Amino acid sequence: MYVVQYADDIVVIDCGSKFPDESLPGIDLIIPDIGYLLENRDKVRALVVTHGHEDHIGGIPYVLQRLNMPIYGSRLTLGLIKGKLKENGLLGQTQLIEIHSETEVELGAIRLGFFRTNHSIPDCLGIVFYTPEGTVVHTGDFKFDLTPVNNQFPDIHKMARIGEQGVLALLSESTNAERPGFTPSERLVGEHIEEAFKKARNRVFISTFASNVHRLQQVIDAAAATGRKLLLLGRSMVNVVPIALEFGHLTMPEGMLVEAKEANELPRERLAVLCTGSQGEPMAALSRLASSTYRQLEILPDDTVIFAATPIPGNERNVAGIVDNLFLLGANVIYGSGTVTGMHVSGHGSQEELKLMLTLMKPQYFIPIHGEYRMLYQHRSLAESVGVARENIFLLRNGDVVDIRNNMAVNSRKVPAGNTLVDGWGIGDVGNVVLRDRRHLAEDGILVVVVTLSRNEGTILTGPDLISRGFVYVRESEGLMEEINRLVVLTVKELQESGELVKWSILKHRLKETIGKFLYMQTKRRPMILPIIIEV
Amino acid sequence: MYVVQYADDIVVIDCGSKFPDESLPGIDLIIPDIGYLLENRDKVRALVVTHGHEDHIGGIPYVLQRLNMPIYGSRLTLGLIKGKLKENGLLGQTQLIEIHSETEVELGAIRLGFFRTNHSIPDCLGIVFYTPEGTVVHTGDFKFDLTPVNNQFPDIHKMARIGEQGVLALLSESTNAERPGFTPSERLVGEHIEEAFKKARNRVFISTFASNVHRLQQVIDAAAATGRKLLLLGRSMVNVVPIALEFGHLTMPEGMLVEAKEANELPRERLAVLCTGSQGEPMAALSRLASSTYRQLEILPDDTVIFAATPIPGNERNVAGIVDNLFLLGANVIYGSGTVTGMHVSGHGSQEELKLMLTLMKPQYFIPIHGEYRMLYQHRSLAESVGVARENIFLLRNGDVVDIRNNMAVNSRKVPAGNTLVDGWGIGDVGNVVLRDRRHLAEDGILVVVVTLSRNEGTILTGPDLISRGFVYVRESEGLMEEINRLVVLTVKELQESGELVKWSILKHRLKETIGKFLYMQTKRRPMILPIIIEV
Repeated sequence: MYVVQYADDIVVIDCGSKFPDESLPGIDLIIPDIGYLLENRDKVRALVVTHGHEDHIGGIPYVLQRLNMPIYGSRLTLGLIKGKLKENGLLGQTQLIEIHSETEVELGAIRLGFFRTNHSIPDCLGIVFYTPEGTVVHTGDFKFDLTPVNNQFPDIHKMARIGEQGVLALLSESTNAERPGFTPSERLVGEHIEEAFKKARNRVFISTFASNVHRLQQVIDAAAATGRKLLLLGRSMVNVVPIALEFGHLTMPEGMLVEAKEANELPRERLAVLCTGSQGEPMAALSRLASSTYRQLEILPDDTVIFAATPIPGNERNVAGIVDNLFLLGANVIYGSGTVTGMHVSGHGSQEELKLMLTLMKPQYFIPIHGEYRMLYQHRSLAESVGVARENIFLLRNGDVVDIRNNMAVNSRKVPAGNTLVDGWGIGDVGNVVLRDRRHLAEDGILVVVVTLSRNEGTILTGPDLISRGFVYVRESEGLMEEINRLVVLTVKELQESGELVKWSILKHRLKETIGKFLYMQTKRRPMILPIIIEV
Repeated sequence: MYVVQYADDIVVIDCGSKFPDESLPGIDLIIPDIGYLLENRDKVRALVVTHGHEDHIGGIPYVLQRLNMPIYGSRLTLGLIKGKLKENGLLGQTQLIEIHSETEVELGAIRLGFFRTNHSIPDCLGIVFYTPEGTVVHTGDFKFDLTPVNNQFPDIHKMARIGEQGVLALLSESTNAERPGFTPSERLVGEHIEEAFKKARNRVFISTFASNVHRLQQVIDAAAATGRKLLLLGRSMVNVVPIALEFGHLTMPEGMLVEAKEANELPRERLAVLCTGSQGEPMAALSRLASSTYRQLEILPDDTVIFAATPIPGNERNVAGIVDNLFLLGANVIYGSGTVTGMHVSGHGSQEELKLMLTLMKPQYFIPIHGEYRMLYQHRSLAESVGVARENIFLLRNGDVVDIRNNMAVNSRKVPAGNTLVDGWGIGDVGNVVLRDRRHLAEDGILVVVVTLSRNEGTILTGPDLISRGFVYVRESEGLMEEINRLVVLTVKELQESGELVKWSILKHRLKETIGKFLYMQTKRRPMILPIIIEV
């Protein structure tokens, strides 16, 4: 999420989500911390969304619950946002305003214009903010696909005009700033898909991102060219295709789509299956097909399975596991890097395209965005190579602000920003202590020690009772448990004799310490120890 | 771990370890399940180790505790094993027998010979088992490096002789069976390292696997050629280098090694630092240098940092995080795939080398080993392409046995095999229930509900008391906690009235169910619920 503010007018750009890594156990989703927007609630004019990918729209249903604002987006982008709002029962509560590359919008003192870009989803827009201080451009995610599948060419002439009129600051995405060259056209993938379809003697299963509508179109074309019907598998595939058909982003021969029942009755060389799960997601269609747990359909020997997507870093192991299973089923599998198989090209511009954008926009100030630090760093080098002065380039971290006044830009202050964690219905309620406890519990489990003491004499009435979860089986560790019982009795007695038993906190602390030390010595493990003292 | 058995003589090959993924929380290490060896304890003649990598020797200290056996290995391999045994207080309890490529060993009815191979660690051996039934060859990990750094050439002539004499079965490693071509010589990396050292104006930090002694030699050579002293950082680097020097696998100019204090006093262009952490390991030297938490030394702007290793799948994110931090420090970072940077070549043979091994050995039966299923699958295709009949190739899974009798091979039985989990001192004592509990605890934490009931009437004496760990803060969730208290009182009352309170198990079950449902409705989370009933 980025924010452009002029005086008392705030325009928010995108509102994404990301998935947690293993350091955040139990967390479902990470969304932006909107502390700054909540503090400046009355100044927020709108949310403008560049395109419909999850890392740009995924946070919307959660953020809207705390801050309602009108949303501007292109047709497909709004279509996908509507789906999200519907799922969360939020439809109708927020104003949705459709825009396209020729729309102009006034939001307080800021006038907005747009330009069309290419990316791995249709209907993407770059945003131009005309402010009294000067023009700010945000590219959104982009590549320059000069032979786009849908013939929606990038607005290069418009970009050139914007640049000629003078750009105060450019914010440009950095995903592929480490990659030399020019990202190949999506059309290249279509040729490889068609070739593989022609070669396949039996069923073809092909998996890609549901939102990559251009690629879906090329799969449809290949199926049509080889006389195959098409079965869609996986929730997001079944969701996206009708929206894309409705808005004219996809076209398909009449009667091409079949349901699983009909698909099973077709000759094997007459069926193509378009499914989710190209990143090895364990619950997605391809993973279930590979482990033969998909009830409706099975993969048979000599079927062809195509991964039309390169594994995103972190997903390699899951993808590899699925490939193993597919080979076990006897399938011909086309997998691995798209650069080798030809079955994937990136949706992000490589170094030459980033340089082209910089050249077109000729910005006075440059802020590389949308990338890890090393990518921003490389993007800075690219900007310098096309003539932007290093002191005019800002490598920002979450919360950093660039203030521009009288053509002078400084990055000297921060606003609250960062990650808000979503867990179940809770937004932002899981904090560091809870996460630390979860990690501790995951590592070595928990041992609950219950003792009932008499209110007056402090003698043990019942227990100690030991309950272990995620540590050891109590039943198989009787020796260990007896030793702990002995330690508890001893500790109570010691405190009784020294007169310290009056405070349960001292007993609890002593039990934790004593049992913890003992268990580490015996097992080299450190379960969480939870002493419970009942006073009767 | 593989086993070759002839009648009553068992020879074990290698005994590795691997690290758990996130599905095994709290587990330290995975080693082979040696159930079959324990059942046939009296037949086990020896463990023969092909080379000193962790995935071939890491399980030895754990397995020896349950099954002592003489260990055969080359000089460096035994040196590294000795280090492990020493750490675990096991040195002196096991017979260690040094072998080299010309050694012959009799183990019962099996005669063993060896041949030298190249790999990313020196002193690697392939093993030949001469049995009355025929000859079995196990390659170990190998590549064909025809210009090896240490001039220890692969024993190609010997392999050819073994093949000519007739090989009944070949077991050959499959790591790079998916890669076309011929793996480049390690010498190539040396050239790139020297080039980078010459270009660097300040300190050079270079990180690689400590066991890749050939690469260490090339770093030493580059440092010597550019007049730099050398500082070693990281435990395994400090451990391995002296062993390799002692055994003559490394040579170094007198006085080249410096300690941190001296290193800090050298002019910046006179120091090279050889460190661990090329895979982004969070506690290794490079990670700590990158986050400026290494007390002895810091990375300064314009220092050069070289990753002389490609990230292993699964490690990309950690490595990328370190690269980000290094750029933040202002370093020049050489990172990414070794194919691009020239700073890494694989230690495993690619497809043409696997075909060369198959061609040299001309086996009747072929068993591709040491790889995920898709690699074994590709290795089978390679074997077929050089003339091995498909029906003579066995793709095995853990525990599968190939029995060969009168030249007929069948794979029709299994023996106990698989993973043994190590957690602290415990070997194999953490089972599925404990792991399931750990995963559950990690996901949503635990809520402990304590109630004291009077023995006779079953009325509540104290409580309910609620203790939450990894779920919510009790203090910040007072409303929720009050509701749960109300539910507990209600549940006890209901059971009292229906006369079911006689059995605590019914109460416990009812509490779990009621509270669980309520919490899921309120929070969409499923903490583990642990009811504790005390009877006084």
